[in-house]
Amino acid sequence: MDDRARTEPEPLWREVTGRILRRRRHERGERLVETAERAGVSSQYLSELERGRKDASSEILEAVVGALEMTLAEFTREAAIELSRTAPVLASVSTIASPARFSPPAGAGRPLALACA
Amino acid sequence: MDDRARTEPEPLWREVTGRILRRRRHERGERLVETAERAGVSSQYLSELERGRKDASSEILEAVVGALEMTLAEFTREAAIELSRTAPVLASVSTIASPARFSPPAGAGRPLALACA
Repeated sequence: MDDRARTEPEPLWREVTGRILRRRRHERGERLVETAERAGVSSQYLSELERGRKDASSEILEAVVGALEMTLAEFTREAAIELSRTAPVLASVSTIASPARFSPPAGAGRPLALACA
Repeated sequence: MDDRARTEPEPLWREVTGRILRRRRHERGERLVETAERAGVSSQYLSELERGRKDASSEILEAVVGALEMTLAEFTREAAIELSRTAPVLASVSTIASPARFSPPAGAGRPLALACA
């Protein structure tokens, strides 16, 4: 059995990206303009990224992820967790929601555990 | 401690993407033209993606990942593993290299364990 046996369709990469960026910004209690300014992008553009309307270039993704004080590694781990919600086989990924040195954002780890239990 | 404490810089997202796509294609013993045809892209374009020269749109990524019989979830998990090689803090991600229903590609799991030991 593999991921192709999942019952729900997977979201597009930019949709997963947007959810993670927005969630992280909200966790930090920041307004679009604050994060956007640090990332060097317009708040309108960041808003489009967060809504999954635009595909970010690797450079923009690096800038926004960095502005949110995440590494690409953390961001990608978040994406794997996010995607595990639509791919049951990824229940195993719930293990990456709480490694010793990683503090999962509110709403990432626990809901995942429930979703994949 | 967090990922920002890592010693190596992180690669760009398209570089990580390219490595995973190429590795997966090689594991399947396919030529660029075969995978590209199924994905509906030119072999030249797929080659650029594999070399990390181009950022794939979410639709293209979905098409290529699908052509390689991976789900976006599997692809993203591979990316998290790939990135863990530059972020020591991600040693914990090595756990996703061998969940019960997931067969990590040759060179993904074990090297990771070594890299993050």
